[in-house]
Amino acid sequence: MGSGAFTLVLALALVACVTPEERKCLLSGSWRSDTGCRMVVSFLSKDGSFSGSYLPGPAAGGSEILTSPLEGTQQDAGLVPQPTFSFTVRWQLRDSETARTTAFLGQCYVGTNGEETLHTLWLLREAANSPDEDWKATRIGTSVFTRIK
Amino acid sequence: MGSGAFTLVLALALVACVTPEERKCLLSGSWRSDTGCRMVVSFLSKDGSFSGSYLPGPAAGGSEILTSPLEGTQQDAGLVPQPTFSFTVRWQLRDSETARTTAFLGQCYVGTNGEETLHTLWLLREAANSPDEDWKATRIGTSVFTRIK
Amino acid sequence: MGSGAFTLVLALALVACVTPEERKCLLSGSWRSDTGCRMVVSFLSKDGSFSGSYLPGPAAGGSEILTSPLEGTQQDAGLVPQPTFSFTVRWQLRDSETARTTAFLGQCYVGTNGEETLHTLWLLREAANSPDEDWKATRIGTSVFTRIK
Amino acid sequence: MGSGAFTLVLALALVACVTPEERKCLLSGSWRSDTGCRMVVSFLSKDGSFSGSYLPGPAAGGSEILTSPLEGTQQDAGLVPQPTFSFTVRWQLRDSETARTTAFLGQCYVGTNGEETLHTLWLLREAANSPDEDWKATRIGTSVFTRIK
Repeated sequence: MGSGAFTLVLALALVACVTPEERKCLLSGSWRSDTGCRMVVSFLSKDGSFSGSYLPGPAAGGSEILTSPLEGTQQDAGLVPQPTFSFTVRWQLRDSETARTTAFLGQCYVGTNGEETLHTLWLLREAANSPDEDWKATRIGTSVFTRIK
Repeated sequence: MGSGAFTLVLALALVACVTPEERKCLLSGSWRSDTGCRMVVSFLSKDGSFSGSYLPGPAAGGSEILTSPLEGTQQDAGLVPQPTFSFTVRWQLRDSETARTTAFLGQCYVGTNGEETLHTLWLLREAANSPDEDWKATRIGTSVFTRIK
Repeated sequence: MGSGAFTLVLALALVACVTPEERKCLLSGSWRSDTGCRMVVSFLSKDGSFSGSYLPGPAAGGSEILTSPLEGTQQDAGLVPQPTFSFTVRWQLRDSETARTTAFLGQCYVGTNGEETLHTLWLLREAANSPDEDWKATRIGTSVFTRIK
Repeated sequence: MGSGAFTLVLALALVACVTPEERKCLLSGSWRSDTGCRMVVSFLSKDGSFSGSYLPGPAAGGSEILTSPLEGTQQDAGLVPQPTFSFTVRWQLRDSETARTTAFLGQCYVGTNGEETLHTLWLLREAANSPDEDWKATRIGTSVFTRIK
């Protein structure tokens, strides 16, 4: 095998090694949901915990809801290419009568084109007055986020 | 009104003031779920964030699952008597093939007898290989916790 | 082995054979949920489909909600001892502005004492005006029913 | 105003009257989900009850799952333009060890272009052996269906 062929094999091996590394998904950055919400993950620590802010879309009743803080954790950050994660948004309301919290649970998928997509299921809870009213406190839904470039 | 009556009124007023304070729910301590799991919240900071550990019950397949760390936040800790909260358990598995995470979202209710009960809904996600398999990644259920004395 | 002993063995064998048969769970009858609702399954056909009515408890806002019809299906009715089932309640509201429907999905378990318990998860949907408002249309929860004797 | 102009106005008025009628959503027909499943609603009765069949997509493990029957009800069929509905799929499995049922709850939305979209949340339950194992019996997710023309 000549030197040229060896170099080619080495280059291919490097590509094969490096590509999965590059395609790892990290949550830091700006994201937009399929319902028009925006999310900014501004800090991601080495152990996978992160913080940021969440801006609801027009359909969420934009006039009542302000930019709200989020806190979460990415599992196996930097170790697996498509990590699972969870985060919680504590809604800042203009009229703070009823506390509202959303817990998101999801996974980051990396497409063949390198595009990252966050698939999430969420639970949204409003504070209830008593256990008798607890049954109606929780809503459920899905959100899909793509990166804002 | 005599001095005795005045003292009585004062004492009643103090009781009325102090009781709601005492009945506030804080998550720190040990809890048992209706499915036999145990949860220990060992640290609760002033801003409401907490950490601890979760021990699954026999029905969870106890031999495969180890004591797992939990991280969470209690909303309005110390300000409202029946706060909402969220926490995430990152399951430590003996065979760590598939990452599993549970996100709990709930509220602490205080009964007329002062007993605290945690009502939660949870989402449990296993890591999937691709978006095509994402549809079956998430389980859902409820857990009710009472304090272990 | 004398005739008396033989009869005893036969009787025990019959009990052993008959008991599983008797312990099969059928949804027909009256049930009460852990949140105080009552449900009457008045008709169960041979193919497992059933109909009945649902009466919400006091916590559901009893003054606004009337007795509502339910329709459902029990899987493998009469074939398996602990069948799964699903049913839908279409809420009859005094002010019929917003249509509400609940879909229950559950399983009937028979305890060692022969007591039947229905474990269900449900989704409750209110009609939304547009896809933009669909995200907040669905609530989720659990209900456990026991038979009213 | 001449006869031609009058005819035009009349025609426009008719369009304006007729369009909402035409844009009513009825579930009968063929639908495809965002996960590649197909659904055929073959019979829709006047009271809104319907039946049909469900064909899972490749991601559902196509080799194990056969075409499965569905039964459901559309609320206010023909009365409201964007009705809610529910239906249940009882999965026909090649190896029928574990019974599986999915309950869908959703709403049909009609876009400005007249295109119908079904937004659904679903619960998928596998039969469990005992109440102890009930906690892990139920999965949850969303599906969006569009009409196959």
